Amino acid sequence: MTHTTICAVATPGNGALAIIRVSGKEAFPVTRKIFRPAKAGKKLEDQPGNTIHFGTIMDGNELVDEVLVSVFRAPHSYTGEHSVEISCHGSRYIEQKIIQLLLENGAVAARPGEFTQRAFLNGKMDLSQAEAVADLIASETKAAHDVAIRQMRGGFSQKVKELRDRLLHFISMIELELDFSEEDVEFADREALMSLVKEVKSLTDRLMNSFYLGNVLKNGVPVAIVGKPNVGKSTLLNALLRDDKAIVSEIEGTTRDSIEDTVNIEGVVFRFIDTAGIRETADTIENLGIRRTYQKINSASIVLLLVDATDPEEIIVRSVETLRGQLQEDQTLVGVINKSDLAGPDTVERKKSAIPAGENEHIVAISADQDHGSDELTTLLTRLVHAPSAGQQDVIISNTRHYHALKASSESLERVIEGIDNQLPEDLLAQDIREVLHYLGEITGEVTTDEILGNIFKNFCIGK
Amino acid sequence: MTHTTICAVATPGNGALAIIRVSGKEAFPVTRKIFRPAKAGKKLEDQPGNTIHFGTIMDGNELVDEVLVSVFRAPHSYTGEHSVEISCHGSRYIEQKIIQLLLENGAVAARPGEFTQRAFLNGKMDLSQAEAVADLIASETKAAHDVAIRQMRGGFSQKVKELRDRLLHFISMIELELDFSEEDVEFADREALMSLVKEVKSLTDRLMNSFYLGNVLKNGVPVAIVGKPNVGKSTLLNALLRDDKAIVSEIEGTTRDSIEDTVNIEGVVFRFIDTAGIRETADTIENLGIRRTYQKINSASIVLLLVDATDPEEIIVRSVETLRGQLQEDQTLVGVINKSDLAGPDTVERKKSAIPAGENEHIVAISADQDHGSDELTTLLTRLVHAPSAGQQDVIISNTRHYHALKASSESLERVIEGIDNQLPEDLLAQDIREVLHYLGEITGEVTTDEILGNIFKNFCIGK
Repeated sequence: MTHTTICAVATPGNGALAIIRVSGKEAFPVTRKIFRPAKAGKKLEDQPGNTIHFGTIMDGNELVDEVLVSVFRAPHSYTGEHSVEISCHGSRYIEQKIIQLLLENGAVAARPGEFTQRAFLNGKMDLSQAEAVADLIASETKAAHDVAIRQMRGGFSQKVKELRDRLLHFISMIELELDFSEEDVEFADREALMSLVKEVKSLTDRLMNSFYLGNVLKNGVPVAIVGKPNVGKSTLLNALLRDDKAIVSEIEGTTRDSIEDTVNIEGVVFRFIDTAGIRETADTIENLGIRRTYQKINSASIVLLLVDATDPEEIIVRSVETLRGQLQEDQTLVGVINKSDLAGPDTVERKKSAIPAGENEHIVAISADQDHGSDELTTLLTRLVHAPSAGQQDVIISNTRHYHALKASSESLERVIEGIDNQLPEDLLAQDIREVLHYLGEITGEVTTDEILGNIFKNFCIGK
Repeated sequence: MTHTTICAVATPGNGALAIIRVSGKEAFPVTRKIFRPAKAGKKLEDQPGNTIHFGTIMDGNELVDEVLVSVFRAPHSYTGEHSVEISCHGSRYIEQKIIQLLLENGAVAARPGEFTQRAFLNGKMDLSQAEAVADLIASETKAAHDVAIRQMRGGFSQKVKELRDRLLHFISMIELELDFSEEDVEFADREALMSLVKEVKSLTDRLMNSFYLGNVLKNGVPVAIVGKPNVGKSTLLNALLRDDKAIVSEIEGTTRDSIEDTVNIEGVVFRFIDTAGIRETADTIENLGIRRTYQKINSASIVLLLVDATDPEEIIVRSVETLRGQLQEDQTLVGVINKSDLAGPDTVERKKSAIPAGENEHIVAISADQDHGSDELTTLLTRLVHAPSAGQQDVIISNTRHYHALKASSESLERVIEGIDNQLPEDLLAQDIREVLHYLGEITGEVTTDEILGNIFKNFCIGK
């Protein structure tokens, strides 16, 4: 596929500047046909790499634009191929005209992600690094950015690749045993193999476990705010928004159904989900509404239950217990005692201790009206997100494809371990190890299919 | 103002790539503080101009992005100053982070158009060329693009500057006469002056007259479609849209009140204005509607009156005459006889000749239903736009500020001519010529004020 020369606009819409990328064997001659350098001199193909040339783009004798042309020589370019970047005025008319001229002169229109796909095919990056490029562009917060850029720099995939290479060595040993099967020799040291397999499984599981955090950092933490009407849900949200550490994110073009607000606290996005108030009732219609509310609550990672400090103790305790009964194991319940200024510190303390906080449960007293305690709450929220990852921030995956490959790999590794324990015949052992190699190879792209590549790169933007 | 080092994102929104521009005396040291080149080597300030350097942007020890840094050395840059362009991944988070780091290290945020303003102040372009940069970016059609790029390349402003310089020579001669006023000498040859003044006035008037065309090419031609209900207005519009030469423009973010559709025919945008049907009536409310319709009609350059070929001759003639009475002198009336297929060729010809076409009037027979004659109509529309400019396409202005300066200049020139004719005293003559110099200088920016500059550049985008 890389025998063609591709071109695309790499910047979106109207702006001061636009960049048009050209990559492939014919990048220089194709560009030369439409580019007239201001200074006569060497041909574009004879210019040294990483140099910039001022001139004009011509459509025959008609001037299209004054531009800068950057020359990148293979393999020292993004794609690893000869490449050109044309920096023109950010007018759609000019962009489209230049693309049209490039197409007329032998280039073809790049598919989404095709520049990055070529970088992968030319060995400039592995598949998980290529995927990180798209995540990096899409990242809206520091947390999402940090996960993506670590992955783009090779992060965990180098480690995966290294362990896979060592497994590859063992499989050749085991397959040698199969050739000599009548002689009952053991080329592959079973003890060393077991130790390696356990090392691989430990990394695999660690990566798998980081997926929850990675996903949260990438996509935001869903937080449901629950409470009876008028307990102060919107006041609480406003207090969080007002917090110094919080920035309301303004993200264009993202539609998120039924999500009211997103708040960025220390680089992590919390997505606050609107829920109707919950109260006990015999009314069927209202019960239906409550069922829907519980569905929404169950889509959250963290559930904030807002209770009124001035309410009687038994009502508070009952509402905590009712909600607790509805939550799933992996959901964190935070009881938030609001209006604590109206109840006085002693009462608040008494009511706090009346609620026995279970595992995955926390209680905070605030006064949303007076901005009191919201600081403690934001600190808690941030801590809840980072807690499961303490000390293992170096290995975070955020990609569903990686998660599934790791999971399949982990299951095969489990069978290899059992197989060694049970002294299974070489051919069965080899088959399970081959599966591990396959799944690990899918992550880095050492094993891949057109379908996998197609699925990955179709979600890229054009020009990347 | 140019002692600061400015920075801004020069590309809009999320995309494959983003470009951040830095310009000013400290562009290299400021960038060096946050840029770690992949290859150790010379400092950024010691790199040759027009070279590209791969490396990373660092926030302390935290990696922000992998980038390409382009180095431009004064005066060989857009602004004429030392400049850097940082090409990073097109994520808003990264863009904003890099801008923040640049600001922390001594750069200031660029105001809208400040890069171009510096290019003007540093003599890289005159004011009318600077204005053309904004027009070029905004241009959506070939026609608008061609007007803007001709102006950006110096188009008429070099001619204006040259004539102004010659006038400057004369004024110094005349002012010398004032010094020797008691001796009654004539240093300035009145005949040569008269000839120059007439030459200037001829150019000025030619430019002024091109403004209508320039404005039309830049902003589109307003066309009103008028006719009684059901005569086929929307069918006509659809036929025009279907025409091979016409492309429906999809322009984002432009809101045009009461305009239904824009059609791009051979690079010129026609803006079709919706009007209610007109018929004779005694009803007051409907009369009010008709008055509003006439207001809309009067905002159009071209008025298409659609009549029904199957209607009696006298009705067709009357509707043409009624509308004719309402039009202004500079409006072009095109009578369009629709449904000509239903009436037969002889009847159509008879009805065509029954309408005496005046100056600025045309008659076309079409059958919008059957796509017949719409070709003739689009050809006519294109011809109507280009007609007034035949042979003088080289001098087109499209800028209201230029138009007003030219108009004021033309009036002063008229007074100079009268003054020479009437042998006015040198001081009065000098005063009028000074005015001409002032107005012509305003176009090219040789005479300017902070207010003029402020008004011009505030409409630029940031990063340009």
